[in-house]
Amino acid sequence: MTANTKQREVIIVGAGVIGLSIAHVLTSDPSASYKITVVARDLPDQHMDSQAWASPWAGANWSPIGDREDRRYKWEAETFKRLWDMIPTGLTMALPTKAFYGDEVSPESIWYQDIPRDFHFLPKDDLPPNMKTGVAFTTVSLAPQAYLPWLQSELKSKGVNFICKKIDSLEDALVFGGSGCILINATGLGARSLLGVEDLEMFPIRGQTILVHAPNLRESLEIASDLHPQTSTGDATYIIPRPGNTVLLGGTFQQGNWDVSLSMSTAGRILSQSCALAPVLKSPDTRILAHNVGLRPARRGGARVEVEWVEFPLKGELNIRREAEVKAEIRKVMVIHAYGFGPAGYQCSWGVAEEVQQMLRAGMGAKS
Amino acid sequence: MTANTKQREVIIVGAGVIGLSIAHVLTSDPSASYKITVVARDLPDQHMDSQAWASPWAGANWSPIGDREDRRYKWEAETFKRLWDMIPTGLTMALPTKAFYGDEVSPESIWYQDIPRDFHFLPKDDLPPNMKTGVAFTTVSLAPQAYLPWLQSELKSKGVNFICKKIDSLEDALVFGGSGCILINATGLGARSLLGVEDLEMFPIRGQTILVHAPNLRESLEIASDLHPQTSTGDATYIIPRPGNTVLLGGTFQQGNWDVSLSMSTAGRILSQSCALAPVLKSPDTRILAHNVGLRPARRGGARVEVEWVEFPLKGELNIRREAEVKAEIRKVMVIHAYGFGPAGYQCSWGVAEEVQQMLRAGMGAKS
Repeated sequence: MTANTKQREVIIVGAGVIGLSIAHVLTSDPSASYKITVVARDLPDQHMDSQAWASPWAGANWSPIGDREDRRYKWEAETFKRLWDMIPTGLTMALPTKAFYGDEVSPESIWYQDIPRDFHFLPKDDLPPNMKTGVAFTTVSLAPQAYLPWLQSELKSKGVNFICKKIDSLEDALVFGGSGCILINATGLGARSLLGVEDLEMFPIRGQTILVHAPNLRESLEIASDLHPQTSTGDATYIIPRPGNTVLLGGTFQQGNWDVSLSMSTAGRILSQSCALAPVLKSPDTRILAHNVGLRPARRGGARVEVEWVEFPLKGELNIRREAEVKAEIRKVMVIHAYGFGPAGYQCSWGVAEEVQQMLRAGMGAKS
Repeated sequence: MTANTKQREVIIVGAGVIGLSIAHVLTSDPSASYKITVVARDLPDQHMDSQAWASPWAGANWSPIGDREDRRYKWEAETFKRLWDMIPTGLTMALPTKAFYGDEVSPESIWYQDIPRDFHFLPKDDLPPNMKTGVAFTTVSLAPQAYLPWLQSELKSKGVNFICKKIDSLEDALVFGGSGCILINATGLGARSLLGVEDLEMFPIRGQTILVHAPNLRESLEIASDLHPQTSTGDATYIIPRPGNTVLLGGTFQQGNWDVSLSMSTAGRILSQSCALAPVLKSPDTRILAHNVGLRPARRGGARVEVEWVEFPLKGELNIRREAEVKAEIRKVMVIHAYGFGPAGYQCSWGVAEEVQQMLRAGMGAKS
């Protein structure tokens, strides 16, 4: 039996789109066998209304965000392909999209044109007032309310074990594994609080949205220049039809704002800007279904996807101490971090999961 | 059959300590019969780790907070009696307490001395460094992790119906009741976001705490001058032993701060100040069990406990619209608001519940 065919124990912390996608890729690995446990405060089958969890509140579509980053480009290109291939299942859908810019944008500066399908520039005459550049493409969208429970149920059918528990420390996760287990940290904004990680580069980007029933709107429209975490004024305008005849109207990109209460003035602004961009929303068929706020798990310096060998028991007076652990032997554990994707979690998910899988394979050869 | 013996339908929004205590008082009313439904985003049997819900993160003890307010004094005095009477059940426990002030405090300015048991002043020699006044009394404490599930299970056994749903509007709650139903709004911080209420006086007071196992510490110690929402610097020091051999170390009173991530520097400060106040915590038997953050549902102007007759369907372009409701007849519904207790939710709970019961009885005689 080679090292690769031996079953390895993996504990994934976090059941958002990143944690679940990683679990899915690992369960589908033909060259290795993993015993996987997902430990999370919030799970798709119970906590889709948790306001401390980002994944339920996403759009979610592939959408151009910010400037090109090579690593993210790769994750997004891979994820797009996979989400596109899922269209026949009904979990994702093809979505014709128009994205507008308030400035003149040169064709070569549109870094993302190879990712979606049917990319082309729009004639100037077809642009909304005050917009100087417009592009069109076909992307994919999904509804987290269906997608996350589907992922969880697939994983359950493949033997993945789910444990619902708020953990405060990487050490809390180790309790669920044996001596050779590997940890995957997909805790999003939680990475800021998790002892053993305590990543102060993590911060929320507050997103407020309105979910509507709008059966006549099947096209996505967005002001692409708003979709930039660094340069956004805080306000953004985007309209995302998803499978199931719902449309998400957004939004905000408020950096460092943890407020999960609704701002009615923001909701009013979103509604009026959305109606201006898509007048079909003024139809009496449009019905507001929900007002939502979510906190995107952003990170200064970009997402963290890397291996760290962490020594346990953790040191420091603030650590969770259990009687058993006070006497525990010192050991080093492979921790793969995968968090901090901000507004791009869904559109990076499969690409990140594949990179984590490669890290895991490579790391299993290393000394543990 | 008189109006009072006819069964009335009551929808309670919110399953925190306020909503559940109201339900409990109503199910125990000998002179009236209610069909009660509790609708809440978070329920004790599923969501005790929800960071948007205040009740799980409380101390919780009766403790002197801020200045005297006549209405709150009455609620607290009634609640204290009831929690004291529950001691034999094990859900609450008698808790010897010492409270210290950094200033000279005159006996007559201690407004709360009639509420707890055995109140007396401490000799100056028994005070910690820098403290000028000390008082001692016996109060009660409880652990929300046991108390809230107990309340819910009592209510279930009495036929109360629980519905797990995040609602965005008072109208969403009406769906669960018939034409003559009464609404009780116990949504805490949610009252800021709930359409039809939209109470902008609501704000969070962030509380960070450490839960420890400390079997040798059975006395509560607190710097009473910190326990003042208006004058607190943001930092507070309090130590609350609860049933089940756990002790809560606090804390913070950070007004308007929605950040539910842990501050490790705050945790360090809480631990060192707690150890200074109670050196027994330095024992090797002390083990940190959890680091927690909760948002106390505070309200400028004080808690809101009052009746409002609200006209439905609600007006305004942001309202949730359902096909059925677009055509709904105009009607007025009695709404009893009970929210905004800040750090004093548990210690007001039974008194508020009794006042709500009286409002309900009085209101049922009014035109509906």
